Amino acid sequence: MSAGLKGIRFAVVGGDDRELYLISELQKQGAYIVGVGFEKASPISGMTLAPSLEEAVEQVDVLLFPMFGTDERGVVKAKYSDSPIVLNKKVLESIPARVPLVIGFARPALKSAADNFGIQLVETAKLNELAILNSIPSAEGAIQMAMEATTITIHGSQSFVIGLGRCGWTLSRMLQGIGAHVTGVARKPSDLARATEMGLHPVHFTDLEDEIGRAEIIFNTVHHPILDRMMLEKVARDAVIVDLASIPGGTDFEYAQLLGIKALLAPGLPGIVAPKTAGRILAHIYPQLILRHLTTVNTTCKVEV
Amino acid sequence: MSAGLKGIRFAVVGGDDRELYLISELQKQGAYIVGVGFEKASPISGMTLAPSLEEAVEQVDVLLFPMFGTDERGVVKAKYSDSPIVLNKKVLESIPARVPLVIGFARPALKSAADNFGIQLVETAKLNELAILNSIPSAEGAIQMAMEATTITIHGSQSFVIGLGRCGWTLSRMLQGIGAHVTGVARKPSDLARATEMGLHPVHFTDLEDEIGRAEIIFNTVHHPILDRMMLEKVARDAVIVDLASIPGGTDFEYAQLLGIKALLAPGLPGIVAPKTAGRILAHIYPQLILRHLTTVNTTCKVEV
Amino acid sequence: MSAGLKGIRFAVVGGDDRELYLISELQKQGAYIVGVGFEKASPISGMTLAPSLEEAVEQVDVLLFPMFGTDERGVVKAKYSDSPIVLNKKVLESIPARVPLVIGFARPALKSAADNFGIQLVETAKLNELAILNSIPSAEGAIQMAMEATTITIHGSQSFVIGLGRCGWTLSRMLQGIGAHVTGVARKPSDLARATEMGLHPVHFTDLEDEIGRAEIIFNTVHHPILDRMMLEKVARDAVIVDLASIPGGTDFEYAQLLGIKALLAPGLPGIVAPKTAGRILAHIYPQLILRHLTTVNTTCKVEV
Amino acid sequence: MSAGLKGIRFAVVGGDDRELYLISELQKQGAYIVGVGFEKASPISGMTLAPSLEEAVEQVDVLLFPMFGTDERGVVKAKYSDSPIVLNKKVLESIPARVPLVIGFARPALKSAADNFGIQLVETAKLNELAILNSIPSAEGAIQMAMEATTITIHGSQSFVIGLGRCGWTLSRMLQGIGAHVTGVARKPSDLARATEMGLHPVHFTDLEDEIGRAEIIFNTVHHPILDRMMLEKVARDAVIVDLASIPGGTDFEYAQLLGIKALLAPGLPGIVAPKTAGRILAHIYPQLILRHLTTVNTTCKVEV
Repeated sequence: MSAGLKGIRFAVVGGDDRELYLISELQKQGAYIVGVGFEKASPISGMTLAPSLEEAVEQVDVLLFPMFGTDERGVVKAKYSDSPIVLNKKVLESIPARVPLVIGFARPALKSAADNFGIQLVETAKLNELAILNSIPSAEGAIQMAMEATTITIHGSQSFVIGLGRCGWTLSRMLQGIGAHVTGVARKPSDLARATEMGLHPVHFTDLEDEIGRAEIIFNTVHHPILDRMMLEKVARDAVIVDLASIPGGTDFEYAQLLGIKALLAPGLPGIVAPKTAGRILAHIYPQLILRHLTTVNTTCKVEV
Repeated sequence: MSAGLKGIRFAVVGGDDRELYLISELQKQGAYIVGVGFEKASPISGMTLAPSLEEAVEQVDVLLFPMFGTDERGVVKAKYSDSPIVLNKKVLESIPARVPLVIGFARPALKSAADNFGIQLVETAKLNELAILNSIPSAEGAIQMAMEATTITIHGSQSFVIGLGRCGWTLSRMLQGIGAHVTGVARKPSDLARATEMGLHPVHFTDLEDEIGRAEIIFNTVHHPILDRMMLEKVARDAVIVDLASIPGGTDFEYAQLLGIKALLAPGLPGIVAPKTAGRILAHIYPQLILRHLTTVNTTCKVEV
Repeated sequence: MSAGLKGIRFAVVGGDDRELYLISELQKQGAYIVGVGFEKASPISGMTLAPSLEEAVEQVDVLLFPMFGTDERGVVKAKYSDSPIVLNKKVLESIPARVPLVIGFARPALKSAADNFGIQLVETAKLNELAILNSIPSAEGAIQMAMEATTITIHGSQSFVIGLGRCGWTLSRMLQGIGAHVTGVARKPSDLARATEMGLHPVHFTDLEDEIGRAEIIFNTVHHPILDRMMLEKVARDAVIVDLASIPGGTDFEYAQLLGIKALLAPGLPGIVAPKTAGRILAHIYPQLILRHLTTVNTTCKVEV
Repeated sequence: MSAGLKGIRFAVVGGDDRELYLISELQKQGAYIVGVGFEKASPISGMTLAPSLEEAVEQVDVLLFPMFGTDERGVVKAKYSDSPIVLNKKVLESIPARVPLVIGFARPALKSAADNFGIQLVETAKLNELAILNSIPSAEGAIQMAMEATTITIHGSQSFVIGLGRCGWTLSRMLQGIGAHVTGVARKPSDLARATEMGLHPVHFTDLEDEIGRAEIIFNTVHHPILDRMMLEKVARDAVIVDLASIPGGTDFEYAQLLGIKALLAPGLPGIVAPKTAGRILAHIYPQLILRHLTTVNTTCKVEV
């Protein structure tokens, strides 16, 4: 309904299905979209495909990269691209100072390059607001994986949520909503107090090894090797582990396999299990974020389209 | 822990994974199990395999058939059998009066045969208690199917539950627990009052066609052609229908396909999505139910094993 | 907004604050109101006060009596009346057959009088729909009483709900919503199955005496002497009992006092704790109910006002 | 069960009913209690009454003052005292460095005195853990006040929670649990994102004046004049305000009264509405907190009792 992005030109570079929904939402708000790496997707009305990242950079006011960012060689994850898209030095040099580069996770190399070349780098995965909203599709995806992997119902199960952060709270609430007995594992007394208030069974990390034995489903959200050999030894052999921590997760997957414990790594769930919702979340957050970075150049922008 | 079934001999005839869990639970309670149709399953310690249904009948005090019952030709659904098991006239004639035949759904032909031959037929799918407990794995299975079929999250979705009966209430509560906006559709004013109390948006069947247009996910639990051509015309093309009503469901699936609406039939979910929980539910309900039907012959039973 | 009651004349006879809200809601729907027993209330615009019940009867199409009905001598409870209103033989004789007498609870004497005099008696307390909606203010009122009477929070408490009927379910859900550990006590296996699904701790009546000892707050909804001397002996001395069963409740109040257990009878909560909501509930249900009883005389009614 | 406080001598100075429960819990853990200001309470077995605060100071290892702390003249709130207890300069000078002074809120004067005299001042109201646990009785107390002040049910009401902090989250969840439509008002995008995840209707402070008109019950938790004249003008005259912010609250109470809006200040609810729970919370948190401050003197303590 709003047309707050009228006249602003975006390059959307790679990504997965959620970018398809994001593009359409941005268009509704008036944005003009140049796509890079969408050759294999169904054509999107009103979107221009740029032949290369270099050419896109010259035509736009904002660069949108995916949540995943790039791999260690600068290759952008792009589900619908038919050739690799690389965010290399040459491209970086060509980005004007007025064009913000919006990306989920930025690797250290990208950060220092941005510093060197004077690029406005906007790292979105660190935004609390985005992380909390993204925890909704993540938590649902993790629950779906658990449903698929177990022979029991979530309802009535002993479910453990390790780490009560942005994703842990969401997961805990949904598991309770389905009817699980939820144990919340955290370190901070204030988080354990909140767990008590929410009706979770609060367990301090230092007591986890005494309690984990009764877990039937374990959700890990902590980016540390929590579920190491020692801890896994105490886990029931027919328990299921869903690990939501970013790669490589917090589980010793090899050892879990050796013990016969089913353990699943669940990376990037929002774009996989609910791309439309994930795209809407980006479309909810990006416009205002970007407008804030464009304020100085708004006037020139408005002339152009 | 309890050994209330000590000395009682069960024939477990066919079924799916949930029977594997049921068998083990019955054994824990002291039962002696004769299996029919488990040739392809991993061997179960303590269970004797009978070469045929006929021979099993002669050796036992109780006959357990699966929830699904038989097809129209008397064939028992048996996931782990290597040859068809048929509940035919010859078998029926050989069932002694003292041996209850426990089955989920009994077809009319079986019912009249039971009448003729003086068989104690115990139809369990009609038991309110069992149906309510089974609604838990059914509802979770339906939610899992919806999660898999949609590009949105359940959280924040407009979800409709058509029919507020044993399964409808469970589904509604779980959907709310995940964070959906739930519309409950029913006919009885008292059900709509209860829906109001539960925080559902209550809609009378007669108003469904005015409201269905905003549904993103539709769960049908009613065994009538509710989602017929007229109704489907009003459904959004990107909505997803999960139909839990017993075959053939309440949806015109062909017409839905024609319109491009994703519609899924979800039969027998408990045994598929959560066989262990479903097996436990049967093991929770069957012992007392069976003991009530065995009271007159208890003494002779106790001698035999 | 609707004017479905246009031209219909109601006598509202006695009652409490909820009738004040009911009157205003009925007026919004087009009804003409004659009040009996509202001398001490603030004047209600558009309402005519009748000098007596007899005179009101002659002027109206419908008679509305309060939920409480009358006492054993026919006296109508009327909070705002300055003299007793009696539903005696003389009044009953004068009620035309076309005028339904709507009342919450009808005593046996009133029922037989209605039979004798050919009065359309509409007893509303028996309506499932009304009872379920009224369970909302009742449950809240009971929780408020418990909050006032205890030195502990509902959150984290061991709360028992005895009787899982229309009020019991509502109470259980609210108590859970606040954070209590709720034990649901019932007789029917299907109710205990539903309790399990809802996450209550299910207890059969026959096991109540073994469990009641750990209760901190007890809500009784059963119209039988459940909390008798034997049971009270097992209740903790610092527990609090809130009894919602209609007078005289299901508790031996004298014995409870002797033991030092705080026990409270909670009658007619909707009209006391939330008269506006309670009045809205009546206004939601009465119009359609009454229109069904008026169908034969509708035409004559419409002429008169 | 634990006797972790064995041999440690506490002076409990003033307070309200929650201190009575706290004393008994500390005694269970092995503590020796000297009471100051409990002359009018029922005698507590095992507690010694000190004739004055000065004399108590000399005999103990820890000083416990109430959550409220003192008034501006140093007078300690003491419900059961028959004479004023004053925390004056003379007393402060006499407190040995090894004796921590534990108090809820410490006024600036007390803080600078503690600095000057080298007193270990432990201010507990600032502890996140305690504040979160105390939010449970606070929220219940506020809900009880709203139930008492309104003519509607919480269920189905439009309830606003202004400020999503430690108390706001708890209140929001409980109100939802009872069945209210809850609007959460906050400033931080991350709090509004969490509100969305929880199923609240999220409203930014800057939009509050556009939304407040539909509120039926308003809970304020913010220590700023949010509900000022401008805002109150937009509030419905029959709405009810419960203000949980510390005195003087965030409401212009005089103006509310002028407008005919019922507005209630709700200070110190835990000790009033649920002293037993509030005492248990203190008893859950104080022992470890205190042991940490006593570590250096533990050995000498253990000898003495």
